[in-house]
Amino acid sequence: MTQDRTTPDAAAAAEQDRREEELLARVLRSFDGCADPRLKELMRALVRHLHAFLREVRLTEDEWWKAIGFLTRTGHTTDDRRQEFVLLSDTLGASMQTITINNRAYRDATEATVFGPFFVDGAPRVELGGDIGGGAPGEPCWVEGTVRDASGAPIPDARIDVWEADADGFYDVQYDDGRTAGRAHLFTGPDGEYRFWAVTPTPYPIPDDGPVGAMLAAVGRSPMRASHLHFKVTAAGHRTLVTHIFVRGDDLLDADSVFGVRESLVKDFERMPAGTPTPDGRAVGGTWSRTRFDIVLAPAGA
Amino acid sequence: MTQDRTTPDAAAAAEQDRREEELLARVLRSFDGCADPRLKELMRALVRHLHAFLREVRLTEDEWWKAIGFLTRTGHTTDDRRQEFVLLSDTLGASMQTITINNRAYRDATEATVFGPFFVDGAPRVELGGDIGGGAPGEPCWVEGTVRDASGAPIPDARIDVWEADADGFYDVQYDDGRTAGRAHLFTGPDGEYRFWAVTPTPYPIPDDGPVGAMLAAVGRSPMRASHLHFKVTAAGHRTLVTHIFVRGDDLLDADSVFGVRESLVKDFERMPAGTPTPDGRAVGGTWSRTRFDIVLAPAGA
Ligand SMILES: [Fe+2]
Ligand SMILES: [Fe+2]
Repeated sequence: MTQDRTTPDAAAAAEQDRREEELLARVLRSFDGCADPRLKELMRALVRHLHAFLREVRLTEDEWWKAIGFLTRTGHTTDDRRQEFVLLSDTLGASMQTITINNRAYRDATEATVFGPFFVDGAPRVELGGDIGGGAPGEPCWVEGTVRDASGAPIPDARIDVWEADADGFYDVQYDDGRTAGRAHLFTGPDGEYRFWAVTPTPYPIPDDGPVGAMLAAVGRSPMRASHLHFKVTAAGHRTLVTHIFVRGDDLLDADSVFGVRESLVKDFERMPAGTPTPDGRAVGGTWSRTRFDIVLAPAGA
Repeated sequence: MTQDRTTPDAAAAAEQDRREEELLARVLRSFDGCADPRLKELMRALVRHLHAFLREVRLTEDEWWKAIGFLTRTGHTTDDRRQEFVLLSDTLGASMQTITINNRAYRDATEATVFGPFFVDGAPRVELGGDIGGGAPGEPCWVEGTVRDASGAPIPDARIDVWEADADGFYDVQYDDGRTAGRAHLFTGPDGEYRFWAVTPTPYPIPDDGPVGAMLAAVGRSPMRASHLHFKVTAAGHRTLVTHIFVRGDDLLDADSVFGVRESLVKDFERMPAGTPTPDGRAVGGTWSRTRFDIVLAPAGA
């Protein structure tokens, strides 16, 4: 006769594992009847990863209740003007990972980053070399570059939407007088070139007076976003690019609260002493900055 | 010179992977400063599993928006009386997995299952052999058994709370007249024995008029719970047991909407023809049923 060498502890551990596996298998089977194959795939994968998380961390019942409470507060903080679940996704890097997944690497096409909540459709048009500031407080910043395809051919008439916070960290939609500032659109010229005046980007916090802000505080993270200028670039036959540029040397580059920074999007912003002549002869009456952002669009469907 | 054999597609795939990994690493690093080691562990594990899910399913931006919308509706459905996030956890098996993790297998100790939302502290006491029905509509059901420890020793004076839905699928807290029915507590006798009258358990749906109900419908799942009778058993020096018993032969055993069923908790409910003498001589005036549930408690801290 063989002797059973299993200790009581080992037997209990094996039985425990069997129970956890059996439960997971039962939950996965519950989606067998799902008629939509993609929904079935999503739900099954969600369940696998959710249960793997619970089992790995050995979540306590008290922690489970805290998670339920956190989700409830996040839901109750969300309304027509405040999307706390988006903020949660942003601060866990889930938004940026989704953007990354859906904007696949293609040769030297410019990298995408998070869209953010401050885009407004139908921003005013400015001509090449115009000012998108619209009176937003801040240091003038000259931005220029080209839009090309991945073979290096210039793309004329590409639409560029740009938007940014002012020197106080506010977008115009956060003003209480409803005026438009720090946003506009323009079109590239015949050689794919563009240029405009904006204000030098400065940091601002994401809304941190809700449960996501409390989470950031609890884990010792800052709600600040690295200084940036938003771009949305659209051209027929090309993949629409939504991205930002960031300011080289910004302390927050490695601590951006929503993980939007990519090294390829960090640009030199040259600081110009007061009195330095501007590219277009405009009198700015103080310091100004300048940067260059050459954009490469992937083909549509890439 | 070596020749670069990497195809453009393979290079793009490698670059894509690098971007996704780099982002994940950056998000994980953001918790480096978390002063609470358990919170740090939980957040890092959550981020790893969340990003693994996103990357595995290649979540589209449209799907991401649908998820945000679902969570928002779930939050807005939750109030003081309705906990839609708990329902979501229940229907994904996360509640049952958490219960399983926190009630470790211990020799032949009775398995735990989900608590559910219908327990009420301070339910009335009945004597051994008393009726917990309190006038709840349903077929009478005689329930008896013992409470013992894992060595087989009886546990006298163990407190047993029992609660259940009536034949229409409603708990008393769902009645609009505030009366107590289908719930009570009692204490085991000197040999650990207990017995009481209840009503034969019947199935009922979880609330399915909210986003979780819509999810169940979309994946082709039923909101029904398998018929069950809730137990909470408390005795000094022992791990508190929260569980149900289920009815052998119930069609829903393999389709319980919250995955509470364990094979060890499925009991024979013997159906007795009208006129069959009852164990305590009570005249029930119709059919009745009987079942036996012998309970084994793990030691406290097991
Ligand atoms: Fe922004
Ligand atoms: Fe129940």
